Amino acid sequence: MQHALHALIARARPLCALGCLVSLGVTAAPAPAAGESPEIVATQLRDAALAGHTIAYAWVSELTTRFGPRPAGSLNEHQAAEWAATRFRELGFENVRVESFPVTAWVRGTESGEISSPSVQPLVIAALGESPPTPVAGLEGEVALFPSFDALKAAPPGSLGGKIAFVARRMVRTQDGAGYGEAVLARADGPGEAAQRGAIAFLVRSVGTDSHRLAHTGATRYVGGRIPVPSFAVSNPDADQIERLAALGKAVRVRLFSSASYVHDAHSQNVVAEVRGRERADEIVLLGAHLDSWDQGTGALDDGTGMAIIVAAAKLIRDAPHRPRRTVRVVLFGSEEVTQPVAPGGAFGGHAYANGHRAELATHVLAGESDTGADRVYRVGLPQAVIQGEFARTALRVLVPLGVLPAEHAPDEAGTDVGPSVEAGVPAFTLSQDASRYFEIHHTPDDTLDKVDRPQLDQNVAAWAALVWLAADSDVDFRARAGTPKPEVLR
Amino acid sequence: MQHALHALIARARPLCALGCLVSLGVTAAPAPAAGESPEIVATQLRDAALAGHTIAYAWVSELTTRFGPRPAGSLNEHQAAEWAATRFRELGFENVRVESFPVTAWVRGTESGEISSPSVQPLVIAALGESPPTPVAGLEGEVALFPSFDALKAAPPGSLGGKIAFVARRMVRTQDGAGYGEAVLARADGPGEAAQRGAIAFLVRSVGTDSHRLAHTGATRYVGGRIPVPSFAVSNPDADQIERLAALGKAVRVRLFSSASYVHDAHSQNVVAEVRGRERADEIVLLGAHLDSWDQGTGALDDGTGMAIIVAAAKLIRDAPHRPRRTVRVVLFGSEEVTQPVAPGGAFGGHAYANGHRAELATHVLAGESDTGADRVYRVGLPQAVIQGEFARTALRVLVPLGVLPAEHAPDEAGTDVGPSVEAGVPAFTLSQDASRYFEIHHTPDDTLDKVDRPQLDQNVAAWAALVWLAADSDVDFRARAGTPKPEVLR
Repeated sequence: MQHALHALIARARPLCALGCLVSLGVTAAPAPAAGESPEIVATQLRDAALAGHTIAYAWVSELTTRFGPRPAGSLNEHQAAEWAATRFRELGFENVRVESFPVTAWVRGTESGEISSPSVQPLVIAALGESPPTPVAGLEGEVALFPSFDALKAAPPGSLGGKIAFVARRMVRTQDGAGYGEAVLARADGPGEAAQRGAIAFLVRSVGTDSHRLAHTGATRYVGGRIPVPSFAVSNPDADQIERLAALGKAVRVRLFSSASYVHDAHSQNVVAEVRGRERADEIVLLGAHLDSWDQGTGALDDGTGMAIIVAAAKLIRDAPHRPRRTVRVVLFGSEEVTQPVAPGGAFGGHAYANGHRAELATHVLAGESDTGADRVYRVGLPQAVIQGEFARTALRVLVPLGVLPAEHAPDEAGTDVGPSVEAGVPAFTLSQDASRYFEIHHTPDDTLDKVDRPQLDQNVAAWAALVWLAADSDVDFRARAGTPKPEVLR
Repeated sequence: MQHALHALIARARPLCALGCLVSLGVTAAPAPAAGESPEIVATQLRDAALAGHTIAYAWVSELTTRFGPRPAGSLNEHQAAEWAATRFRELGFENVRVESFPVTAWVRGTESGEISSPSVQPLVIAALGESPPTPVAGLEGEVALFPSFDALKAAPPGSLGGKIAFVARRMVRTQDGAGYGEAVLARADGPGEAAQRGAIAFLVRSVGTDSHRLAHTGATRYVGGRIPVPSFAVSNPDADQIERLAALGKAVRVRLFSSASYVHDAHSQNVVAEVRGRERADEIVLLGAHLDSWDQGTGALDDGTGMAIIVAAAKLIRDAPHRPRRTVRVVLFGSEEVTQPVAPGGAFGGHAYANGHRAELATHVLAGESDTGADRVYRVGLPQAVIQGEFARTALRVLVPLGVLPAEHAPDEAGTDVGPSVEAGVPAFTLSQDASRYFEIHHTPDDTLDKVDRPQLDQNVAAWAALVWLAADSDVDFRARAGTPKPEVLR
C-alpha cells in the first residue's frame, strides 16, 4: 500500500526535494526556492519523508538498542534522556534541556505463577504496574472467574474472601483502539473492586489482541495511594486455559509470587528541544511522545517510534530552507506509563511539563502527541476552530494523498503527555494511527525493534512534518471557539 | 483452501457416510454397505474426517487442558498416559497397555539472563534440554559472537576462555522444514564445540522462524554422557539486539542463571492400543506420535496434534463397518524430546518400543509418524516397493483431492519415534505436513491449543485414515525392495 501511495505522490512532485537525511549525523539539505508557500514546503517535507529521508528509524533503532527498557525513574530512562539531549544538539535543535522531576520508581522483581490444581501448569503472568509484592512465600488461592468486569462488580461484599479474582473478558480488536478503552477498565479498577470484596490477589486477562504466551502489563489505579492487592495480567492462552479447566468442572487453584519493590527517591525527566520560529517565536506548536517504556520490552512501538516520528518531523522542519513563523517544540516526556488514571494523580512527565511551563501555555498554539505505535496514520483531527476552514482544506490537500481521512469531530484529547496542557486550554490535533496491530504487542516483552514497519513509520513522519509545518508557518488561531477537551483516561 | 477443497469433495461423495463422531464418547456410526472396496471405504473415512466427524480436536483440547506440559519422566506425562489408556478403552480400542521404561528426567528450574554491559537489559532465554545448572551465583562473561556454527568451529583451541559463545545464525523458513535441519546443528553440537575451546557457557539464536520474545528450547548433544556447559537458546529479538550492540562497537557482557536439575530414578512410558485386523491380525501397521512435550508450552502442536491425528484416524478405522485385514497399532511414545541425536543414545520411547517388541518387528508391515504440528498434509511418501504400483495409484486417487502430491523418492526416515523400528527394517511412509508456520511455535511457550487450525487438523486425519485403511485392508508387501533408511538426526 505504501508503495502505491509513494508512486502516486512521486508522479505529482519531484522526490527528495529536501535532500537525503539518512543518518542522525546528516543535517545539510539542498534548499528549494525561498519564499515558497506553506503548502508547497509541507508537500516537499512530506515527500522527503516518504522517500525515506528521515532519521526516524535510526532514532528508534539506536535508542532501543543502547538503552533497552526505560522504566520510569530508572537509570536506563535517565541515560536515554541524556543521549536524546546530546543528539538534539548534534541535530541542530535549540534550547535543548533536561527537566527533572521526582517520582517513586516501581521495580518489577522476580515473578511467577502456576496453576497448582487440578494439575501443575506454569502460567505466563506479569505484575501490573506498581503492584505490591506477594508475601515472600507467595500466595495461593482458588480462582473466582468473572466473564466481565461488571460481573466482578456485581459480586456481593465479602464473597471473594481468600480467593483470587480473575476477569476473563477479551479485548476487541479495532482500528481506532476503542477496544482498549473498554477492556482496560478491569485492569485499572479491578484490584480495588476485588480487594473490597476480600480477594487476596487480582488477575486480569491481558488487555491485548494477540494469542501469545506474553502478558500485557500496564498501570492500575491507586486506592488510598497504593495498589490494593498483588495484581497480574495473564497471557491470553493462559486465560483460555483457566477458562477451559473451569469449563471441565474443575476448581482451579493458582499460586502467585512477585518480589516487586519501590524506590521512593527516584527522579524522571522531560527532554525539551526547539526549532525556533522566525517571526512569532513565543508561539509554540508542541509535539509530544514519551521516552520511558514498560520494562518487559524495549519500548520500540511504545513509544520509541512516537519519539522517532516527532523528532524526525521536527528535524525535517529544522532543515527546511527557512524557519517556520512559529516555534516547534519537541518534548520527550518521562514517566508516562505509570500515570494514574485520575488527574492529578501521581507525578508524571505531562503534569511536570504543564506545571513547569504554566506561564507559557497561553502561547502554546497547538499540541499533538504520537503514542500508538508506528503503523500508518489514517485520520487527522483538527481543533473545532479550524475544522471547516482554509487551514483544514490545505491540510487535507497535503494529507489525503497519504491515505489520511478527516475526523468528523474535533479531538476530545490528544494523549496522556500533552493531556494536562490540553486541559489547560491548549488546542489539540490528532494524527490517528492504525491500531489494529498495536495491541498485539503493547506492554509486552514483544515490544521490540523488529516490530517496526519502516514504510509505515516514514508515512507517519510525512504526515507530522507536513501538518506541523502548516500550523507553525501560519498565524492561524487554533484556540478560537475551541471546546474544553476531556481528560485522557489511561494509557 | 480447505473450504474449496471440502466443496470439491462434497460434490463427488455424500458427506458423513460414517456418521458424526464428534465427541470422545461417541462410537456408533451408520454403516455403509458391507464388502465395499478398500478405495471406497478409504474415501468414506476421508470424507467423514473432512466433514469434521473426528475426535482429533477433542483429544488435543482435553489432553493439553488437563495436563498442560508433559516433560519426559514427569508426573504430568505419567498422568496423561494413564488418561490416554483410559480413553483408548472407552473408544473401543483393543490390547491397550502402558509400557514403562526408566529415564533420567531433566527439570527446568528458575532461569534468567541479562545483558549486563553496556547497559542492563533483560534477555529472554531458555535452557536447552538437559543443560546443567549455572553456579548458584550465576555466571557472567563477554559474548563471543559467531555468525555461523562453522565460524565457531573455526575458532582456535583455547580462544574462548572465560567467554560465552553465541551462534547467531538465523533459521530459514521452508515448507518442508529443511531450514530446521541446517540450523539445529549449532544447537546440538554447539555446547561441545564451545566447551572444547574454553567457553563457560553456550548461547544459540533460537532455532525458529518467528520474531517473538520467546525462546525455542530443544535437545542438545551429550559429550561423555552430559551436556558440557550451561547452554541456552536466546529469543530471536534478543539475538538481534546482541548483534546490533556488537555492530555499534560495544563489548557485550551477559549474565546467566539456571537452577536446572535431574531426577535419576524417573520413568516414562509408551501407550499402545490396537484395532485388531480381521484376517492377518499379526501384521501390524504402526502409527506413532509422542505424548511427552517440552515444558514451556502445553505441547499442543508438538505433539498433541500428532497424537490426535493418529488416534482420530484409528478411531474412524475402528468404527468402519468391517475391520481391516491387518492390525492398526497406535503407539503414543514417551520421552521423545530428550532423545539424543546419535542412536542408540539415551533411553527414549522409540528405543524402548523397538527393544521391547523386537520379535514382532518382522511382522510390522508399515510405519508412519505424525510430528510436525497440524497444518495440512501436502505430500505423501511411500516405500520404494510400492512407489510405482497399483497401491500408489489407488492412494493418490484418494489423497490428491486433499491437496496431496506424491513425493519423488521413498522416505529415508519417518520420524524419531518409529526411527528405531524403521532402522530395524520396518518400511516407512510419510504424510508430510506444511511446516511453514510450525517453526514459529515449536519448542516455545507458545505451543498451546489456540495455535491449532481445526480445518487443517481434520485434513490430516482424513489423509491418515484413508492411507492407513488402504495399507491395513490389503496384503501388499511394503518390505520388498525397500532400501535401508537412514536414522533421524534430532527432533
